[in-house]
Amino acid sequence: MRISIDAMGGDHAPKEIVLGAVKAVQTFPDITIQLYGNEGAIREHLTTNERIEIIHADEEILPTDEPVRAVRRKKNSSMVLAAQAVSDGRADACISAGNTGALMAAGLFVVGRIEGIERPALSPTLPTIDGTGFVLLDVGANADAKPEHLVQYAFMGSAYAEKVRGIAKPRVGLLNIGTEEKKGNELTRQAFLLLKDTNLNFVGNVEARDLLDGVADIVITDGFTGNMVLKTIEGTALGMFTMLKTALMSNLKSKLAAGVLKPEFKQLKNKLDYSEYGGAGLFGLKAPVIKAHGSSDANAIYNAVRQAREMVQNDVSGTIRSMIERP
Amino acid sequence: MRISIDAMGGDHAPKEIVLGAVKAVQTFPDITIQLYGNEGAIREHLTTNERIEIIHADEEILPTDEPVRAVRRKKNSSMVLAAQAVSDGRADACISAGNTGALMAAGLFVVGRIEGIERPALSPTLPTIDGTGFVLLDVGANADAKPEHLVQYAFMGSAYAEKVRGIAKPRVGLLNIGTEEKKGNELTRQAFLLLKDTNLNFVGNVEARDLLDGVADIVITDGFTGNMVLKTIEGTALGMFTMLKTALMSNLKSKLAAGVLKPEFKQLKNKLDYSEYGGAGLFGLKAPVIKAHGSSDANAIYNAVRQAREMVQNDVSGTIRSMIERP
Repeated sequence: MRISIDAMGGDHAPKEIVLGAVKAVQTFPDITIQLYGNEGAIREHLTTNERIEIIHADEEILPTDEPVRAVRRKKNSSMVLAAQAVSDGRADACISAGNTGALMAAGLFVVGRIEGIERPALSPTLPTIDGTGFVLLDVGANADAKPEHLVQYAFMGSAYAEKVRGIAKPRVGLLNIGTEEKKGNELTRQAFLLLKDTNLNFVGNVEARDLLDGVADIVITDGFTGNMVLKTIEGTALGMFTMLKTALMSNLKSKLAAGVLKPEFKQLKNKLDYSEYGGAGLFGLKAPVIKAHGSSDANAIYNAVRQAREMVQNDVSGTIRSMIERP
Repeated sequence: MRISIDAMGGDHAPKEIVLGAVKAVQTFPDITIQLYGNEGAIREHLTTNERIEIIHADEEILPTDEPVRAVRRKKNSSMVLAAQAVSDGRADACISAGNTGALMAAGLFVVGRIEGIERPALSPTLPTIDGTGFVLLDVGANADAKPEHLVQYAFMGSAYAEKVRGIAKPRVGLLNIGTEEKKGNELTRQAFLLLKDTNLNFVGNVEARDLLDGVADIVITDGFTGNMVLKTIEGTALGMFTMLKTALMSNLKSKLAAGVLKPEFKQLKNKLDYSEYGGAGLFGLKAPVIKAHGSSDANAIYNAVRQAREMVQNDVSGTIRSMIERP
């Protein structure tokens, strides 16, 4: 299995990307990795040549670049070349920690949609209190979704949860502002009716305040709301850590006690760290495309490779295709 | 000034409602309070008759009641009677910790909208890390909002922030999934253009992850998104406390250290407790209507009375009316 990686994307590129790739080839004997980017910079951190190939790229897409224009114009960027490898059949999946919008554009224009899928969906796995996690989609590929799109998200999420996360009959919840059938806005009310008519394990509306409790294995929403919820979780968690820190540093007694509790605080932080679950899959494309978090370290990249490998191994794209053909 | 209170609404009614009312009359010599509800049950907790009047109500609206139907049918419920007092000019503002949807319906049908306001907005003040807080609206009065509604929310929020929170030229932010002007969905893109054309202190798009950092004094959004964000903040904060507790109770050493830190954890909880900022105002009605949190204790009710008093004193409804007349 061949995985192409944009070595120049993310806050800690190329170093952490390269280290993550090395860890991945050492763990999984059945993969080879192609690293796209500045050859010299990549080589600096590369400790092995075994099953890792460097493909030099002159350009990179910056976090500030306008996504669609960047993908169209920077044909020789590390990100576009990594996507092109998948499109040309030289790689089975691709990964980038770079510009999210640009990766979505590269996925759409270079890798291409599965026939019948109207909108791909950006789909991270988020933590729950019990450590199981749930898949949330869409978190921003498509801000103005239609009810039919939400139904396709439900199929895509179910395919992933079953094939990669190993959940039989995964529970699909529709993110809404109340649990009753008639709650919500036009979009959710219509999507509810459509979802009820599928053969999926639809458990009805779920509320944002219950997400961390694991009310569903897959939570479906439009990209605007999903992105909002994702960023609210991030912001609240970060804000609470900041406030906790301030409170604990307020006097000597609390400073000492907090010192003792360092491992427990670290445990909490790890539990909330969704890079442990891999990156956000861009579901609905002809081959797996994974968006790793911008702040990815080697471990996050390693987890993204593991995830890409499982998606290829279990043919998630093929499963989505057949589910959409006969829903 | 006369304030009518639904004594039967909320998880701890009537006891905490009555105790909060008593604290309020003892603090503010310029108010009288009307308590609507079961006279016997109210009297059990009432320690003073000074400037507190009980008006017996046979019925109550339950949390499980369908809001609009309940308001239409239960004409003698404590909530509807409290709203009716405002409509009849026997009270200047009203407060309930009961069924949110029913209070919104009572506000709309019994108290009535300010002329020119198309949709009232449910508007809580949420905490920020620095303790200042910000007003978020709408959090659920109106799930399918139009761009023009969002502009009216901006005027209503500004009037409140200026008059009650004492902020000169309050900063209005539009909640969006990116800070650039063209980000978002149809609704936010159109609202952005309209907001730019007002004389408000519009600071552009703000992101959910920055809310606790206090990026704006008023944050404008549609009721679906606002409700989602509110519940996500609540759910994440609660989930983190649960996880923290589990981590801290995992061994004897951490239990002891956690015991020492009790005051600091309490301080953090208080900082996140938005009942300190009063209840959620239902803005855009002819008189102040305040939704206190369902789990309100006496202190939360006291804060809601303080807030209602300041809204009446500073004529927030009148200010909104004149802002809407000549924006």
